[in-house]
Amino acid sequence: MTVRIEDVQAAAERIAGRVRRTPVIEVAPGLTFKLELLQHTGSFKPRGAFNRLLLAKEAGRLTGQGIVAASGGNAGLAAAYAARELGVPARIFVPVNAPAPKVAKLRTLDADVVQVGNQYAEAYEAALIARDETDALLVHAFDQPEIVAGQGTIGLELLDQVAAFDTVLVAVGGGGLVAGIATALGTRANVIGVEPAEAPDLHRALRNGSPIDGPAGGVAADSLGARRLGNLAFEAATTHSIGSLLVEEDAIIAARRTLWHNHHLAVEHGAATAFAALTSAAYRPSPDEHVVVLICGANTDPTTLI
Amino acid sequence: MTVRIEDVQAAAERIAGRVRRTPVIEVAPGLTFKLELLQHTGSFKPRGAFNRLLLAKEAGRLTGQGIVAASGGNAGLAAAYAARELGVPARIFVPVNAPAPKVAKLRTLDADVVQVGNQYAEAYEAALIARDETDALLVHAFDQPEIVAGQGTIGLELLDQVAAFDTVLVAVGGGGLVAGIATALGTRANVIGVEPAEAPDLHRALRNGSPIDGPAGGVAADSLGARRLGNLAFEAATTHSIGSLLVEEDAIIAARRTLWHNHHLAVEHGAATAFAALTSAAYRPSPDEHVVVLICGANTDPTTLI
Repeated sequence: MTVRIEDVQAAAERIAGRVRRTPVIEVAPGLTFKLELLQHTGSFKPRGAFNRLLLAKEAGRLTGQGIVAASGGNAGLAAAYAARELGVPARIFVPVNAPAPKVAKLRTLDADVVQVGNQYAEAYEAALIARDETDALLVHAFDQPEIVAGQGTIGLELLDQVAAFDTVLVAVGGGGLVAGIATALGTRANVIGVEPAEAPDLHRALRNGSPIDGPAGGVAADSLGARRLGNLAFEAATTHSIGSLLVEEDAIIAARRTLWHNHHLAVEHGAATAFAALTSAAYRPSPDEHVVVLICGANTDPTTLI
Repeated sequence: MTVRIEDVQAAAERIAGRVRRTPVIEVAPGLTFKLELLQHTGSFKPRGAFNRLLLAKEAGRLTGQGIVAASGGNAGLAAAYAARELGVPARIFVPVNAPAPKVAKLRTLDADVVQVGNQYAEAYEAALIARDETDALLVHAFDQPEIVAGQGTIGLELLDQVAAFDTVLVAVGGGGLVAGIATALGTRANVIGVEPAEAPDLHRALRNGSPIDGPAGGVAADSLGARRLGNLAFEAATTHSIGSLLVEEDAIIAARRTLWHNHHLAVEHGAATAFAALTSAAYRPSPDEHVVVLICGANTDPTTLI
């Protein structure tokens, strides 16, 4: 299964009006931030979720059973938000140890939150069972073509918003976002996936020659903690020569502080990861290179910013 | 003394490259935020400060004595930032009870911070004396033509960034910002100044027929706490028929929370004041009206957001 540029273009038309066209800001000469943290629910995830739900709706596959998803994080918030906007119920499976504030936030979006098991994998299993029993639509966090195509609409917006850019730095968890953006941009810019060294899904997959399970922890684990790169992301990474960089925990923490103190953006650690590649010099642009950094999520505890 | 549209246009050319062109985002149909909180130093104030310093430089009036200003808040940060960027010293006078974090932030901008007196008025007096003794350039917080013209460049950007809009809601302290924007927009949009009921400088001046001293307190006093509207602001308010609305403390606090929880923007109370006019229904747009809300400042303690 391959996601094509045409899928991303169709997704952009489909989700128009449902998602915010998030702005860009040139914070210094040759350095632009794409402020996707200002998206509904505070992350890029509604793009993919709306694309999946709306495509299912067009095909008559979005029934009164609504949707199921497994996620205590941004993907769950986005799935619940998209379901509510489209008037169908959402059942979101989360581990019993999911943070109470996230569970509460899901409930403010009218989601039926089901706490099951101690691990994400158990919540995911429960979501699969619920799908099979009820015919609800499963909304995956990253590894479905509609999800990848939806996230890719960010790349199309960039082509429209930034006159000329060479490189896009994108944080990688399961890889749906970086895959979509690389598909949208094709050969028009280099796309580099940046990961915490503690959660190196893309890095591991590229070294191994295919996605493979592994540890995924660290400060950004709440958003980048997938244990294995998605298959679609791996295919996009090889097709579009997505670059791969790792950053250390300290660099992520420092980048998040810099985003707050110098740029007045309150972001989650996962969203500071791409910027950390610059601030830690893991990535060193050439003098004339125009770099876009995707700032992809705001769901953080603001009391930890200073 | 009147500030004209030509002064704003000249300011825009003069400060280009020194200030960020801040983005807009349409957060809902007919509702656009201008994200001026992403400006250098976290508020709109560098626009006016750069315009004043650069104009003085052109005229040979920016000497090695640098600048003086009286402010423990956004105006002081902006003056210090602009001075540092232009390579001249900044002496910033603040009351002895100025909050330590703000004093520390001024020092990170290489400002010489002088703590004097218990009231802002005493700090301002000391700044005037220092100017007279040293021939340094005084950078006022709001009531100088270059300051008003510089803040007005936001209005020119809006004309360029938003296809069509009817109304701009702007917070008012001393009124430099609202005056500049109204001058820039002329008859092309309605400009409404929104103030805390606890600090109603514009409201009081319009009722009185001229600016007049009065109490200025409440949650937004750190940025909107001027005790008297500027003369230039009053002139602009009458020339351009600037509207005047008051919002209560509770409305400001609630609007700030909404900006964080729903829009992922961490703002100071003063910057939530304009939005509070909408959320409290102090201002009720007509169905087809396109409203721009200026989000003007990020200098807040993030631990108080939730």
